[in-house]
Amino acid sequence: MLDYLLGSEIAMKNVKLVIEYDGTNFQGWQSQKQGRTVQQEIEKALKIILKKEVKIYGSGRTDAGVHALGQTANFKEDFTIPVAKIPYALNSILPEDISIQSAQEVPEHFHARYSAIGKKYIYKIYHAPFRSALFRNYAYFIPEPLDIEKMRKASEYFIGKHDFIGFMASKSGVSDTVREIYALKIYDSKGWLTIEIKGNGFLYNMVRIIVGTLVEVGKNKIPLEHIPQIIRSGERKKAGPTAPPQGLYLAEVYYDSIR
Amino acid sequence: MLDYLLGSEIAMKNVKLVIEYDGTNFQGWQSQKQGRTVQQEIEKALKIILKKEVKIYGSGRTDAGVHALGQTANFKEDFTIPVAKIPYALNSILPEDISIQSAQEVPEHFHARYSAIGKKYIYKIYHAPFRSALFRNYAYFIPEPLDIEKMRKASEYFIGKHDFIGFMASKSGVSDTVREIYALKIYDSKGWLTIEIKGNGFLYNMVRIIVGTLVEVGKNKIPLEHIPQIIRSGERKKAGPTAPPQGLYLAEVYYDSIR
Repeated sequence: MLDYLLGSEIAMKNVKLVIEYDGTNFQGWQSQKQGRTVQQEIEKALKIILKKEVKIYGSGRTDAGVHALGQTANFKEDFTIPVAKIPYALNSILPEDISIQSAQEVPEHFHARYSAIGKKYIYKIYHAPFRSALFRNYAYFIPEPLDIEKMRKASEYFIGKHDFIGFMASKSGVSDTVREIYALKIYDSKGWLTIEIKGNGFLYNMVRIIVGTLVEVGKNKIPLEHIPQIIRSGERKKAGPTAPPQGLYLAEVYYDSIR
Repeated sequence: MLDYLLGSEIAMKNVKLVIEYDGTNFQGWQSQKQGRTVQQEIEKALKIILKKEVKIYGSGRTDAGVHALGQTANFKEDFTIPVAKIPYALNSILPEDISIQSAQEVPEHFHARYSAIGKKYIYKIYHAPFRSALFRNYAYFIPEPLDIEKMRKASEYFIGKHDFIGFMASKSGVSDTVREIYALKIYDSKGWLTIEIKGNGFLYNMVRIIVGTLVEVGKNKIPLEHIPQIIRSGERKKAGPTAPPQGLYLAEVYYDSIR
C-alpha cells in the first residue's frame, strides 16, 4: 500500500559509476558551455539508454588533460534495465576515450562527492634523455637530472594534517584549506617515476603543485630543509610550479575505508 | 692529397637512428603518396637541419597503427653538425608522435635493413571485463576468458626454425619464408598480457598472426596440439586471425648480438 502511495519514488535507484577516461581531448570533467567534457558525454549516453534527462554528480572536477582510472559519479533515476548491464550499455555508446568500469546500486543517501572520505592520485614522470612519442600525453617529461632520494625525503614533510593554502591554485574560493595526506610514495623504475598520493581530500591543483615542488627539490632548486617552512608559510609563490596536467591520474575515490 | 682528390666523398657520414613513434596517426613507416608516414616526417625534418634532400633507410616497414620503441634507420650524408646533436635537433622539429632516441655514426657498409640480424617485437593484450579508455590505441582488448597456460604451451611450438609461409599476409611476394624464432615469452600481470618475441626476421604480419593464433588457443578455439600441424601445413587459413595493429610494438633491432 505504501509502495502505491509513494508511486515512482519507491522505484528510484541511486547508481554509483566508476569511470576511466583519457583526459587528452577533454576540457576536463565538468559540464561547461564550450568544449567537450566527460560529464556531458556520460549524461548524453545515459539519456540514450534511459530515455530521460539524467544529471550525474562526480566526486570532483578534473582539469583538461588530466586522466582518471577511477573517477566516480552517481545519479538517481527510476529505470528497469538491470544495474549490472549499465556499463555494457554505456560503453557501447560512449566515445572511446571514456569507459565505465562498474555500476553498482548504492543507498539513497550516497553522493559521489559528499560521501567520499578520501582519494588516491597517481602522477607519472618520464625521466629520460629524450622525450617520449608514445607517452607524450600520459606523463611529464623531465630530461634534467633528479635527486630522487631527496624527493623521497621531501615527500615525508607533506604527510599528515596541514593547512595547504600555499598549495592551491589562486581563486579557488575554498574556506577550509586544511587537508590530511595519508601516504605519499615515489616509485622509481627504468626512467619512470610514479608518485602515489592518498589523502582525505585535495585542494584545486594541490597534487600538481606538490609534484612541482618535489621536482624543484629533485633539481636542487629548492633545498629539502625548506619544505616545512614553505608549507607553514601558506604562500603559493614559495612552492614550486604547477606540474603539467598530462602526468596526473585520479586513481581511486574511497568511501568506506582507505586501503 | 687523397682527401683533396676524393673531395666531399671522404666527409660522407653514415648515421644510424633509433626511433620511437606512436603509430596511431600514421599510415605506417614507409613513404607513400597519400597519408602521413614516419619516414616522410623524418626526411622532412632532416632536410630542415641538413639543408639537403636526405633519404633514410628503415629496418623494415610497420603498418598503420603499429608502434615502435626502437625502430632503426640510417642515412648517408656529409654534414658538419656533430652526430650527438642530431637527436636534439630532430626532436625540436619532429611532430610529438615521433622521437629520436639516439644517433650514432656507423661504418660505411652499415644498412639498417640488410645489416640487421634480428628483431624483438612486443605485443600488448588488455584482458579485462571492460575496454580501456586510456589504452585504446596501445593494446588489443580481449574481454573473453583466456587460458594463459595453454597459450604459453602453444607458444613453445613456434620457437626454432620453421617455414612460416602460413603465418604471412598473402601477396607478400617473399620467396624465402623460413624464419627462426629465438624466444617467445608471455608475461601476465593484472589484466595485461605482454607477448615478447625475438627472431632473426619476421614475414609480413607474422607477429600479428602468431598472436592471433595464440589467442585462439587461449579461447579454446584452436586445440593446443594442433599447432605443430598448423605450422607444417603452411596454410594461412588454418592459423588464427591477424591480431589488430595497435597492440604491436617494434621494440628493438639487433645488429651485433641478440640479447
